[in-house]
This record gives sequence, C-alpha cells and structure tokens, in this order.
Amino acid sequence: MDEIRVIEIKKSIFEDNDRDADRLREDLRKKGVFLLNLMSSPGSGKTTTLIKTINALKGQLNIAVMEADIDSDVDAKKILEATGVQSIQLHTGGMCHLDAEMTRQGLDNLDLDDVDLAILENVGNLVCPAEFDTGSSKNCMILSVPEGHDKPLKYPLMFSICDLVLVNKIDVMPYFDFDLALCEKYIHMRNPKAQVIPICAKTGEGIDKFAAWLKDQVKKWKEN
Amino acid sequence: MDEIRVIEIKKSIFEDNDRDADRLREDLRKKGVFLLNLMSSPGSGKTTTLIKTINALKGQLNIAVMEADIDSDVDAKKILEATGVQSIQLHTGGMCHLDAEMTRQGLDNLDLDDVDLAILENVGNLVCPAEFDTGSSKNCMILSVPEGHDKPLKYPLMFSICDLVLVNKIDVMPYFDFDLALCEKYIHMRNPKAQVIPICAKTGEGIDKFAAWLKDQVKKWKEN
Repeated sequence: MDEIRVIEIKKSIFEDNDRDADRLREDLRKKGVFLLNLMSSPGSGKTTTLIKTINALKGQLNIAVMEADIDSDVDAKKILEATGVQSIQLHTGGMCHLDAEMTRQGLDNLDLDDVDLAILENVGNLVCPAEFDTGSSKNCMILSVPEGHDKPLKYPLMFSICDLVLVNKIDVMPYFDFDLALCEKYIHMRNPKAQVIPICAKTGEGIDKFAAWLKDQVKKWKEN
Repeated sequence: MDEIRVIEIKKSIFEDNDRDADRLREDLRKKGVFLLNLMSSPGSGKTTTLIKTINALKGQLNIAVMEADIDSDVDAKKILEATGVQSIQLHTGGMCHLDAEMTRQGLDNLDLDDVDLAILENVGNLVCPAEFDTGSSKNCMILSVPEGHDKPLKYPLMFSICDLVLVNKIDVMPYFDFDLALCEKYIHMRNPKAQVIPICAKTGEGIDKFAAWLKDQVKKWKEN
C-alpha cells in the first residue's frame, strides 16, 4: 500500500478570498475539473459516504480526493485503501477551515490530468468553513440524523451556501427524534434551492442518487 | 413563560485573552461562582444533558445558564421551560467561539448573587472553542457515540484542554461501531488526566455521576 502524502497547508497570503476563489473556479473549469466541497460536523459520515460514492462511480468518473484535517491521516488512508483513488491528506495546522488559496495548495499536489471530479473533504465544522469560498464548483454538506433536525436553525450560513444536503444515517431514524419533513422545511427556509437527498452511507441506501447528482453536475460543468 | 433575553455579543477588544481569562476566573472565584465551559460538536446533546443535570441538582446548587449560538434562541428557551433556572441566549454574530471577554459580556447579564454554578454552553464546534480560554473554572466536552471513537485523533486540542469528557448517547451503542475502551485510550493519549463519564442524556443514565462531579468541583472551588 502506498504511503499517504500529507500536505502541511500554509496560511493564505491573499487578502481577497472571494476573488481568489473565482480565479480558482475558472482555472478548474478550463481544466475540466469539477471540485466538490464537502462539509459537515465531526462524525457525520463524510469519509464513509465518499468511499461508497466513489466505488459507485468507478469506471464512470475519474476522481481524486483531498482530506482536510487538523491532525492525523486516518481519512486519506481509509479512502485510498477502500477505493484506490488518488488521495492526499491536508493538514490545516489547527485552522478551522480552508479558503481558496489553501484549496489550491492541495490541488497543486494532485495529478489532475485525467481527473473529472476532485473532492475536498473540509474540516469537520458547521461554522467556519461556511464563511470561506474554496473555489469549489458546488458545495455539499452532510447532516446526520443523530445531530437533530433543528441544525438549519442554528447554523444558518452553512445551510444557505450548500447546493446539496445529504441527510445521512437514516437507518437509525427510529432511535432518534428526527423529523425529516421538518428538517427539509428548515433547510429550504435557509436556501429554497438546496436539494436534499436522504442516505445511509453504512447500508448504501441513497448513494445511487448522490452518485447520479455528481455525474449530472460534472457533465454540466464540462459543457459550460 | 418569560421571554428569553438574547444578548448580542460584541467582538473582544482585549488583545491578551489568556490574561483576561485569568482575570475573569479570579473575579468568579471571589464571587464563589464556578463556571463550566461545555463544548461539543453540533447535535451531540449539550442542551438535553444540561436539562437532565440541572434537574438532578435541584435544591442542591443554584444554577444559571448561558446558551451561545450563532442564531436562534431555541436552546435558552428549552432550558428555561424544562428547568426554570436563569437562562440567557448569547448571539455570537457568526463567530465560531467565545473568548473570556465575550463570556464576561454574558455573565454581566446574569444575576449571579446566589449562583453557585454558571454554565456556558459554547458554540457547537470541536475546533475554535478549544483555542480560547473562556475564563471557566473547568472545561467539559460531550462526544456522542454516533460521532465515532476516533475523534480524539482528529480534534486533539479540544480533548487536551477538557477536564471531563462525557460520552453521550450510549443507548445507541449497538447501532454504531463505537469502541468505548479505544475511545478512552485515545482521550488519554491527548490528556492523561481527563475523566470520562459515559451517559445517556435521553434516558438519564450516568447523569447522577455528572451531577456528583459538578457538586464536587463547585465545593472545591468555593473552598480554595
């Protein structure tokens, strides 16, 4: 098994992150690379969801993954072992989010030549990552059932910037007071355009829908 | 039912948060008020744990609660309705943590005359709150079973600054791959002195142990 490359991300020097993010998005569009920024709380199932989805997309999309974490290379190792796709670990050195320049440092360490879909697994945090445009083509977040359906009320910005919300761990719905309809209502209060897909990364339920969404997004990205 | 007071917290002007935190701690010691800083990821059960614990301590400690949130007053309302204790909501205006001066702004809005135990429910976030000393007497965090036992590997600072880790939602242990012994091992890698109490806020299991810990801490705080 290959060693996981760990990239120590440096603090950005650019002052205007929004402009830098637009620049990165444009560069990626020219290269034909769709960048997904995947966010969530700690432990809501980002890595497991990615593994299932990458395997569902095998032979259909070329994928590369950047795993951002304050410490450890647990996630990049897991992704590589379970899927075989290009996977690097980004260490944020205690920083609670990634911005566009930090994302670029990660992308520079990937071989993007044949990649259709690059995925950034952001730091587990519902607050700070929402405040920084990473240059991604689309933003996606995972809300897991045990966290509760009221999270869009408490973390409004995160829900307002996400194009897609995956509601994960629906297999444990019977053991938690989680109202999916109410959750969707709260999500749409924050962002009427957000799509919602219930999934269970553990059993694979709904992963086909997420995979189809990604294929569709990558196709549109390359056409424009 | 009383209206919930919502305090809009302003950004701190103090440059040296550590010194300011020590000053606040000293002020609180003189007043005989023990301040608990309670942290966790979003949705790991801070508010439910507090409700059960406050009710378990009724008639034994006078308690006041500050609920920090980016938006909404859901939590302060819940606390007041379920326990009747003094409860205010702190709005952080998008900020991802509280420091000592922000905590002081909250405390200034409480009547602390007969209070033994003031509780700060920090913003749901495992990253930023760990970086700022709030002036608390002790730090406590909740890790819930669905988040996974590997969290001390990924959020080292949070676990290293906590005196007590409550492992919540142990009722759903059979539905998740959560290894409590391994989790304790990881916690003690970060902080050998951290105490660990498994609880289930929903059923009340272990709440008596947390309540006893609090009573003991408050007693020691007042004696010193």
